[in-house]
Amino acid sequence: MILAFMRERAISFNVGPSELFPTVAGYLETAIRDRVGSINHRSEEYKAIDRSTKDALRELLEIPREYQIFFVSSGTEAMERVIQNCVDIHSFHFVNGEFGDRFYQQAVALGKNAQKKSADPGFSFDLKQTVVLPHVELVCFTGNETSTGVWLPEKDIAQVKKANPKAFVAVDIVSAVPYVDLDYSSVDCAFFSVQKGFGLPSGLGVIVVSPQAIDKSAELKKSGLYTGGYHSFTELARYAERNQTPETPNVLGIYLLGKVSQDMIRIGIDRIRKDTETKAGIGYDFATGSVGFGPFVQNPFDRSMTTLVFKVDGGSKEMIERLNENGVEVSSGYGQFRDKHIRIGNFPAHRVEDMEGLVNHLRRL
Amino acid sequence: MILAFMRERAISFNVGPSELFPTVAGYLETAIRDRVGSINHRSEEYKAIDRSTKDALRELLEIPREYQIFFVSSGTEAMERVIQNCVDIHSFHFVNGEFGDRFYQQAVALGKNAQKKSADPGFSFDLKQTVVLPHVELVCFTGNETSTGVWLPEKDIAQVKKANPKAFVAVDIVSAVPYVDLDYSSVDCAFFSVQKGFGLPSGLGVIVVSPQAIDKSAELKKSGLYTGGYHSFTELARYAERNQTPETPNVLGIYLLGKVSQDMIRIGIDRIRKDTETKAGIGYDFATGSVGFGPFVQNPFDRSMTTLVFKVDGGSKEMIERLNENGVEVSSGYGQFRDKHIRIGNFPAHRVEDMEGLVNHLRRL
Repeated sequence: MILAFMRERAISFNVGPSELFPTVAGYLETAIRDRVGSINHRSEEYKAIDRSTKDALRELLEIPREYQIFFVSSGTEAMERVIQNCVDIHSFHFVNGEFGDRFYQQAVALGKNAQKKSADPGFSFDLKQTVVLPHVELVCFTGNETSTGVWLPEKDIAQVKKANPKAFVAVDIVSAVPYVDLDYSSVDCAFFSVQKGFGLPSGLGVIVVSPQAIDKSAELKKSGLYTGGYHSFTELARYAERNQTPETPNVLGIYLLGKVSQDMIRIGIDRIRKDTETKAGIGYDFATGSVGFGPFVQNPFDRSMTTLVFKVDGGSKEMIERLNENGVEVSSGYGQFRDKHIRIGNFPAHRVEDMEGLVNHLRRL
Repeated sequence: MILAFMRERAISFNVGPSELFPTVAGYLETAIRDRVGSINHRSEEYKAIDRSTKDALRELLEIPREYQIFFVSSGTEAMERVIQNCVDIHSFHFVNGEFGDRFYQQAVALGKNAQKKSADPGFSFDLKQTVVLPHVELVCFTGNETSTGVWLPEKDIAQVKKANPKAFVAVDIVSAVPYVDLDYSSVDCAFFSVQKGFGLPSGLGVIVVSPQAIDKSAELKKSGLYTGGYHSFTELARYAERNQTPETPNVLGIYLLGKVSQDMIRIGIDRIRKDTETKAGIGYDFATGSVGFGPFVQNPFDRSMTTLVFKVDGGSKEMIERLNENGVEVSSGYGQFRDKHIRIGNFPAHRVEDMEGLVNHLRRL
């Protein structure tokens, strides 16, 4: 835990919740002044916020006009709703870490016949030859596996749909947005939460959904399946038509997401992507040249640009504590790697100088 | 919509989201300074917030020690999770308005054999003679029906469990807390959201759950039923044991709920309840003495202290607009009563002077 007096200059490289995007504090102040916390979720004011946030997301991420954008409460809820709305019986999961496994387990809990293909931790899949058998209703990917730092190339995911046009594809991009350059028209569901790449307080998830997935959801509901009640795709779509949500949503979160997305449009997504790669390069270059410390993911092409995972010979616990003493937070390893790895979130809130500072701290340890 | 220049002195009597509790703006500033938005949900810092908020809620609302407090995303989600975790086949619903009906519809959507007893809008039930047949697994109440302003006396709800000790009872107290003086040990599930009586930004729901309900949930899960996956009572309880949540929660919302609950403890729940009744009295007295304007709920004993619903002869639309022009927001009627009623939230954020001001505005219209 960072001591109170350290807080002023603390920086979080946690993989999420992470450092807030630098404009968030100011927007929170504006939100207080403009009484955003009191806005009724059925009012014209709310509808304007809802519309504005979706417009900004659509522009920033190049989401096709015919795709819907739904607000839910977390990436984990998104997994539940995607399975409920797109799968009657058969789902298939590419699992290369704990978050891919969570997606798979969610399908199992829902009583689906969920099959999976697993990769060893730190390794990926060759998706180029993927053949989806006709009985599989939904193929699930983890675009960026936050537990191990393995990245699935966007083009390889897109290729699966191209080679298997009848397949439905869902992709977890929780810790990949806004960096991920996904062709949304090549997937049916993509979902993320806002406390990672968008640098916002947690408590909001977003699902991008194809028209085909909404049709499928309607069919499943018609057949008597429970597709999520108030958060079924059909209910979400019915309310989205009037720029509302079925329940009272996280209005403040939706407002902040819109504001930060507009900032990111102004900065330019190309610039954000380029900076992300520059910062990742700084981290990976340092690690590759270090002794007793190095990238966990062996194949450079599988390495995440947004979640840098390093193995620490002799254990990561002391390194994390020493960084903390210097006001720098990083994440421990996940699950079995808790005390063996450090994980570094590399999001738009982090500047090139921040990453250089982190590397300098590591150098001096 | 209130014009920007009116905002400075605007006040919201919406039935939720409503006026923020007066200390919220300051806590949001503290939260920014203390980097609450960046706190990792698996850290000791988060655990301290989780513990502190639950302790404050437990003290303020006198929640029994053996009852669990779970954080979800909304009152609507709470309805879904309560049905999923407490009902195999049979639920029974007392429905006296749109929110009671939403609870019932949620059970229907989940494929339950849901039965209901309906009261006409504005009317209530005599619960004193309620006999719960053995096959009914869960009896559902709406403690305060936000659509019509009908209140079910806490003692009458408690009486149902006392007379039928084997029955499970769930009660929607979304717009009733913290005023409602519920004996939590007389129910198995009680749930609320924070954007009403607690005067907080929306995006957080709370479920209070008895040990028996958690046992029942475990049984249902064991029998193969889907009890909500990551938000099943058993998963929520497993994480609650270590003061965490299964997913990344609305950390900022949980932090603010704790702070405002502590403020309310300092003010004193008795004082809050007394003030609520004083303010409700001001509203009802004015309405009762008015011509062409009066309480929608005929029986004074059924009238809500937290949601004042008035019928407006000749339509409520112009009245709502005129109030808006004076910087005062109230809610329209709900559903079929949209243009016939006004609804006034009477929460701890509203002072006695605020209610007097509102009545003065109404008097001058």
